[in-house]
Amino acid sequence: MTPSAPAYRRLGVEERRSQLLEAALGLFAHRAPEDVSLDDVAEAAGVSRPLVYRYFPGGKQQLYEAALRSAADELEQCFDEPRDGPLLIRLSRALDRYLAFVDEHDAGFSALLQGGSVVETSRTTAIVDGVRRAAAEHILRHLGVTEPGLRLRMTVRMWITAVEAASLIWLDESKQPPVGELRDWLVEQFVAVLSVTANRDPQTAALVTALAADG
Amino acid sequence: MTPSAPAYRRLGVEERRSQLLEAALGLFAHRAPEDVSLDDVAEAAGVSRPLVYRYFPGGKQQLYEAALRSAADELEQCFDEPRDGPLLIRLSRALDRYLAFVDEHDAGFSALLQGGSVVETSRTTAIVDGVRRAAAEHILRHLGVTEPGLRLRMTVRMWITAVEAASLIWLDESKQPPVGELRDWLVEQFVAVLSVTANRDPQTAALVTALAADG
Repeated sequence: MTPSAPAYRRLGVEERRSQLLEAALGLFAHRAPEDVSLDDVAEAAGVSRPLVYRYFPGGKQQLYEAALRSAADELEQCFDEPRDGPLLIRLSRALDRYLAFVDEHDAGFSALLQGGSVVETSRTTAIVDGVRRAAAEHILRHLGVTEPGLRLRMTVRMWITAVEAASLIWLDESKQPPVGELRDWLVEQFVAVLSVTANRDPQTAALVTALAADG
Repeated sequence: MTPSAPAYRRLGVEERRSQLLEAALGLFAHRAPEDVSLDDVAEAAGVSRPLVYRYFPGGKQQLYEAALRSAADELEQCFDEPRDGPLLIRLSRALDRYLAFVDEHDAGFSALLQGGSVVETSRTTAIVDGVRRAAAEHILRHLGVTEPGLRLRMTVRMWITAVEAASLIWLDESKQPPVGELRDWLVEQFVAVLSVTANRDPQTAALVTALAADG
């Protein structure tokens, strides 16, 4: 970019906002949020610091929350799967999209989930928890359950947490095992933990029977 | 306590420190750390604010980290199980101690694990991660594995995360299901996810065979 024709003049408000969020997510991907300054974001986006402040007058905290919100929205879209075909195939497709998101956002995904930054607040925790809740609701809807009992809810939420943990380890381990194996393995674990719960819970037992007949 | 004979004169340095940490943990148990002031801690402990500062000159952040460290040490002791008898019995006993810790610390346990407070930092995250790592090492040691492969490590860490999630939901759900059922259910899930991994990993397959012969 040459000083005489700064690229940032060419963008509209929404485009500019998106560009700044992208730049911020890229930086948060590789450094703890407390080590990212607004100057860094301005430099990464090729714009001036005042411009960053014009879009995010609340400074870094506002920018961080907006970046997290934008990533969370994108993540929730991964779970948006039509209710057609065998359930475990739908779950595989949703996991494919989710794992592609993890792959793309990489260290940024870890930073978002692991927290522990000075800009983390109850609001940012609420955003991440909202994604978890949305994932659980999607799964229960696909399972056709409108009033999930405690044991079924716990099982689904425990599996979602295990998937998160698997994603973080997968990123740490140079994305091994291969993504297709990881996806199949996670689906198998879902069936396994549901089957364990089925021994203690009639509602889950009925679902496991239906799943077995579904393939 | 009467003003003429304040109780806090009677305690030694270590006792006083413990008392302040207890008071702090009690407060963090029911409120977000950012809503707890040093005045609150002083009041809960029945001491003066300057006394709290004498023990924790770094203020609330230092007190919070010390309280977290103290809870983490206690938690790690839960995993300290002799290597005698069938493995799943040892796992049950360790889970009993862990769940008793969760029961006792209640909302404070949630606060410690869920983070999202303004006093959370990379140091506090490291403390919580250290407990997770210690739990994984204990399990692998009991399994007799010195060089765990990726798939086994992932399985153990995913289960630990699922146990954490179960604990948090259990606290949210008025401690239902009963603690004995929860413990057995978690042990069953451990066997189930190991068995799924065994289909993909010879090292885990050998462990599952050994576990089945162990009872």
